[in-house]
Amino acid sequence: MQKPSIPKGTRDFSPEEMAKRNYIFETIKEVYHLYGFRQIETPAMENLSTLMGKYGEEGDKLLFKILNSGDFLSNLEPSDLSEDVSAAKAAAKIAEKGLRYDLTVPFARYVVMHRNEITFPFRRFQIQPVWRADKPQKGRYREFFQCDADIVGSDSLLNEVELLQIIDEVFSRFRIRVLIKLNNRKILSGIAEIMGEGDKITDITVAIDKLDKIGIEKVNEELLAKGISQEAVDTLQPIIGLHGTNDEKIATLKNVLASSATGLKGVEELETILADMQRLSLRNELELDLTLARGLNYYTGAIIEVKALDVQIGSITGGGRYDNLTGIFGLPGVSGVGISFGADRIFDVLNQLDLFPEDYTRGTDILFVNFGEREQAYILPILSELRKNGIRTEIYPDAAKMKKQMTYADNNRIPYVAIVGEDEMAADKIALKDMKSGEQALFTIRQLIDKLITKN
Amino acid sequence: MQKPSIPKGTRDFSPEEMAKRNYIFETIKEVYHLYGFRQIETPAMENLSTLMGKYGEEGDKLLFKILNSGDFLSNLEPSDLSEDVSAAKAAAKIAEKGLRYDLTVPFARYVVMHRNEITFPFRRFQIQPVWRADKPQKGRYREFFQCDADIVGSDSLLNEVELLQIIDEVFSRFRIRVLIKLNNRKILSGIAEIMGEGDKITDITVAIDKLDKIGIEKVNEELLAKGISQEAVDTLQPIIGLHGTNDEKIATLKNVLASSATGLKGVEELETILADMQRLSLRNELELDLTLARGLNYYTGAIIEVKALDVQIGSITGGGRYDNLTGIFGLPGVSGVGISFGADRIFDVLNQLDLFPEDYTRGTDILFVNFGEREQAYILPILSELRKNGIRTEIYPDAAKMKKQMTYADNNRIPYVAIVGEDEMAADKIALKDMKSGEQALFTIRQLIDKLITKN
Repeated sequence: MQKPSIPKGTRDFSPEEMAKRNYIFETIKEVYHLYGFRQIETPAMENLSTLMGKYGEEGDKLLFKILNSGDFLSNLEPSDLSEDVSAAKAAAKIAEKGLRYDLTVPFARYVVMHRNEITFPFRRFQIQPVWRADKPQKGRYREFFQCDADIVGSDSLLNEVELLQIIDEVFSRFRIRVLIKLNNRKILSGIAEIMGEGDKITDITVAIDKLDKIGIEKVNEELLAKGISQEAVDTLQPIIGLHGTNDEKIATLKNVLASSATGLKGVEELETILADMQRLSLRNELELDLTLARGLNYYTGAIIEVKALDVQIGSITGGGRYDNLTGIFGLPGVSGVGISFGADRIFDVLNQLDLFPEDYTRGTDILFVNFGEREQAYILPILSELRKNGIRTEIYPDAAKMKKQMTYADNNRIPYVAIVGEDEMAADKIALKDMKSGEQALFTIRQLIDKLITKN
Repeated sequence: MQKPSIPKGTRDFSPEEMAKRNYIFETIKEVYHLYGFRQIETPAMENLSTLMGKYGEEGDKLLFKILNSGDFLSNLEPSDLSEDVSAAKAAAKIAEKGLRYDLTVPFARYVVMHRNEITFPFRRFQIQPVWRADKPQKGRYREFFQCDADIVGSDSLLNEVELLQIIDEVFSRFRIRVLIKLNNRKILSGIAEIMGEGDKITDITVAIDKLDKIGIEKVNEELLAKGISQEAVDTLQPIIGLHGTNDEKIATLKNVLASSATGLKGVEELETILADMQRLSLRNELELDLTLARGLNYYTGAIIEVKALDVQIGSITGGGRYDNLTGIFGLPGVSGVGISFGADRIFDVLNQLDLFPEDYTRGTDILFVNFGEREQAYILPILSELRKNGIRTEIYPDAAKMKKQMTYADNNRIPYVAIVGEDEMAADKIALKDMKSGEQALFTIRQLIDKLITKN
């Protein structure tokens, strides 16, 4: 008999883990609702024609493909197995469906398919697992959950403002101190433009992105090595070394980018957002960070990233504006902006900082000890009464040894155990043991209900 | 540009559908919690070695298999494509993982893998999608949700009693009137035994199962055609024509099955369960139904099935006891009993009978009309104040035409629209329009909060 296992990179979630995960999802969901976002779900499987080509060549390789059912072999010929044929080409003949890789492309597909039922601007959120055939490693899984909110069909910067508020609110509720970093793709374009190297924007941002890690000297070396002129590198210096308050940074940027219309537009967008944010007094700091370049080929306006302050971990939330999400499916001109909370990393942060609230892992409130058939028959209606009052109630199903039943309560962290034997039945009372303090006292049903209801 | 679509048999869920589905899941979840069940989740993908051979030959064919990533072709040789090689055999070489087909086998795998962390008896519930490559048809999907609760590690019939209570409670909350049917596999074995046809139990139950559809004459014909003796068929008559109350049926069964120890054991189990149920006064009827034979090769004790009374639809919940669930993974002697609510069919029933409670589809509570930058800046802190009080608040992101903004509120069923223009700002008031009545009145922020909080 083989020992059962699960595919690498996937996980089971125990009741304790589920309680913690539900706390994360429920908190995010509640805040999304407060801002008027509406939940949708899409199928785990999408047609590969929907998924392929949307995540770059690397992404295509990471898609989990589903074998066509039935006689898939008839589509494969011996010549398909020759060494000249790539696995991707053969896969296309025997797999038409794949598991969703993120929530953004399925959402774009959803918007296009349901455009006639949707009233724009459409504020949707979606909390579902995604799958990637990545090399599994610590903190990286092949099945993991994304928690996305997007607004499509509106250019207004108010959307960016509200998404930043949501980030601030969610992490305040989690009691995780964060730094919210903000950038704008148009500023990055502007920088490349004034350097006279507009076509080298990718090289430039990749180099800037490394500033924290390798320092300014090495960044400059790398830029020169990429064939960027000394003059252009000189122009970059006041920007790359940018420091001070957000206002000071903006003032400098306005100067440096004076000759780039695109760059100035980016600065103006940032200024508008920051002005609104000041009015709203966030609890977490918002920092303009020009080295923020994530998803460069994707975002067209704001770029957002969140870092936990008290734990060494990568970005725990990210987002930005993309101008043509649905264009790939034939619906151009729909601008969108969105964020995505990384539930798995947030889980790790809450665990490390011991921030999970105790009452969220509420399980069973009370366990009734089982002494046998007579007692059981007497207890059954009492159980119903407690449950009617919203009290989570269990009876141990067998008349096992007392010690075993108590261990069960302990291991399942059930705070109260009720003991109803001969004496209690005669007195019409319930003996209640507080598992934490060890204290025991007699209660009527009514008293018991009152005690446990106030507990919850 | 191709028109995007989703794989057949799968579905998108709109915000309205999600609200309804969440109502179903939350209701079931709440009742599971009241009975002390604890939630787990397992990965969508399982190793095919875990899934294959657990659902019969037909089931194996309905598994969605996931193509190995990387160079899967190297495992396939031209000879694998010859017509003599079955698709299944070739698939085994290029697919090691599959999508979960139900929640029971992954649960058994979970129990075996985590046996050292679990305190038995283990009461777990699980609400997740499952996938089957079935022929899609009305009401049958390739991706659908199961809502399972099981207790493993206890033989006590109290578990059956509590599962029946859960069924009664859940459908009472849904306001769906149901008939709960109960049978016991041991009784079916006893019947075959006294007929002297113990080895033909499958033929016998398959025939009995058709009683409703084809009538007793045809059932008898079928039994004879299967090679069952006239004498045996005669013995069956008092059982197959069984009627009256549950007590009357039990009395008859005791008589007829007097010579079968197994049969009597089944009757005794039923009696114990029914005695407890009477003490608990269910709101739905519980009927002993000998023609209930679902999952015959699987269940070893109680068999449970639920039918909606006011809608023509198949079974909407089912379950039973299985004595050796984890044996297939090397952990023998763990008895289990469980039920599974069919969320998709319950959805259809609630829809047809118009039983979805209105307040469960609560979306945004109030939309603020957007008149432009000045008003927007004035409104932003008000929005924060409302949200702080748990009121789901939106502002239209653009200063669009009034009519467009009102249509947005209408289409999204937002009950209140707030209008804050020049006059209102000067008076420090908010004009509130009730979208249902059309009435409009002026409020201070405090008054507005009080009004909307009492609404929720």
